[in-house]
Amino acid sequence: MRATTIHAPGDIRVSEVPDPTIKLPTDAIVKVTAGCICGSDLWPYRGENSIRAGATIGHECVGVVAEVGSEVTSFRPGDFVIVPFCHCDNTCAHCRAGVQSACANLGVTVSGQAEYARVTQAEGSLVGADADPDPAMIRSLLALTDVMATGWHAAVSAGVPEGGTAVVVGDGAVGLCGVLAASVMGAEKVIAMSRHESRQEVATEFGATHIVAARGQEGAKEVREITGGVGADAVLECVGTDAAMGTAFEVARPGATVGFVGVPHGVELPVGRMFSKNVGLAGGMAPVRRYLPELLDLVTSGAIDPGRVFDATVPLERVADGYRAMDRREAIKVVVQP
Amino acid sequence: MRATTIHAPGDIRVSEVPDPTIKLPTDAIVKVTAGCICGSDLWPYRGENSIRAGATIGHECVGVVAEVGSEVTSFRPGDFVIVPFCHCDNTCAHCRAGVQSACANLGVTVSGQAEYARVTQAEGSLVGADADPDPAMIRSLLALTDVMATGWHAAVSAGVPEGGTAVVVGDGAVGLCGVLAASVMGAEKVIAMSRHESRQEVATEFGATHIVAARGQEGAKEVREITGGVGADAVLECVGTDAAMGTAFEVARPGATVGFVGVPHGVELPVGRMFSKNVGLAGGMAPVRRYLPELLDLVTSGAIDPGRVFDATVPLERVADGYRAMDRREAIKVVVQP
Repeated sequence: MRATTIHAPGDIRVSEVPDPTIKLPTDAIVKVTAGCICGSDLWPYRGENSIRAGATIGHECVGVVAEVGSEVTSFRPGDFVIVPFCHCDNTCAHCRAGVQSACANLGVTVSGQAEYARVTQAEGSLVGADADPDPAMIRSLLALTDVMATGWHAAVSAGVPEGGTAVVVGDGAVGLCGVLAASVMGAEKVIAMSRHESRQEVATEFGATHIVAARGQEGAKEVREITGGVGADAVLECVGTDAAMGTAFEVARPGATVGFVGVPHGVELPVGRMFSKNVGLAGGMAPVRRYLPELLDLVTSGAIDPGRVFDATVPLERVADGYRAMDRREAIKVVVQP
Repeated sequence: MRATTIHAPGDIRVSEVPDPTIKLPTDAIVKVTAGCICGSDLWPYRGENSIRAGATIGHECVGVVAEVGSEVTSFRPGDFVIVPFCHCDNTCAHCRAGVQSACANLGVTVSGQAEYARVTQAEGSLVGADADPDPAMIRSLLALTDVMATGWHAAVSAGVPEGGTAVVVGDGAVGLCGVLAASVMGAEKVIAMSRHESRQEVATEFGATHIVAARGQEGAKEVREITGGVGADAVLECVGTDAAMGTAFEVARPGATVGFVGVPHGVELPVGRMFSKNVGLAGGMAPVRRYLPELLDLVTSGAIDPGRVFDATVPLERVADGYRAMDRREAIKVVVQP
């Protein structure tokens, strides 16, 4: 099949690779209807994560079941499915506790920007959607495979209180979905820290009541002003850098929780401040499967339209252009169409 | 007055110092009935915190009101009071949110091991107890000024679930109070990590169902075995060292929270593990005043006897012996009798 592969920093190609096959009876193969590029794909693209030259890349996709292993009984070829980026059996102790991202049989999608993807633990992982979803809805369902569920996880982890104030650090697709989540959860003030106009626009559509364009100390000062000097009730850290984490703790009120979902890169947590201010940290890799039924309801009812984070689409053959656009921040998030 | 002063690492004296006086109308002066030595007093004693030579030391005491400022209306000379180690107005935004330890008018007791102590924000801080408390009860009330409230905060922060499993890292007085708290909150298994026999005994009295004497990797392995390989639902970190924090995160199940109350010294939080396992961190300096009414009820009803953590008493003149005994772990916690 044709699949996106990475060979070195900045070197994204479309290569012919072996079709994924059923390896275990719990597997399924999904023909990808739409995949996309994640902010976290940019870490290896920028040379900040190690790369295995020639490896496929892409962990987000929706599609149609092509084949199932013998233990997969709830799905059959032809079913349209949402593929959470992390696969889980949804029955182990960790899954039952709502931490499907720490499943005892954890797997991940490894060829989401390709023609086919293998889903391990298909029975526990997949969630079906209407057989022939509106093409316009595909983007929103695609967002549920990672970014929307991840933004939601940030909001859940931060404990966004109804009527309270939430700050979202990061205006990537996850941050924007965090804005949407905080808004749906009933925060009265949703402060989006964003300095890019196109992203500010989406943040506002998603329910941001305030935009803070300044960063660092200056940004934190503006947030403190908006919150009457008290700080935010809940903070969503959706980047993963030390600077973003620092800002998150700066703007949190004593007793608040920073919900973090950005994969940490070079983060040193301010444990002294956390102690003296009683600001907690919660979150991590999102248990996507846990949230999928609820989020799917919100999408199908029209309550949310997370597909709005996609502002560009490329055919698979031009996937490298998609990476370039995201790397240069010319696009928020790019659909890859096999 | 006579007061405990610190002059250098290991150099604890009893000195004649000026009596504390009412400086602000919100102050009160308390004649100390009983004070005590805290594990955190050992940090400067061991030279691990900076010392201002000749400064008074001691932040825990109960006593009788001697004098009040003009704005203190709920207390009068002669009242027996519990003095939370951190003073708060109990009216600011942070206090109203239950984080009295981040009060906008935060103060601390600075001469608890002395004849008199000044309480700033007396109206918001003090809690009265029966006029002539049973001498045997004095110790339990004294424990409420810090260690019991701090152990309770660890349990609250960790979210100890009824019927669940809690691990307490640290067998100092705070850790033991954490065991008591987890037990009162209904944990089915309370695992105390302790290798000192006298402390194991108190832990068992306080409700520990399991004692793990091993430390580090070996201790974590034993906890995993007790928890069926899953890890603990809640972990109370009551030490503040990097090793203790590491153990706390090792034994936490995915999705759990480490409640930390040990003042961090050289702690580097394992942010990568926190992310991949979704293990959160919450806690910090305990908002003692928040918990005092509830804990006072538990003490006066006889439901808890946190005074059990005191296993030695010294007269003020021999306070240095008390420090020595705690430093050598010959005593768990020492009452200082002025």
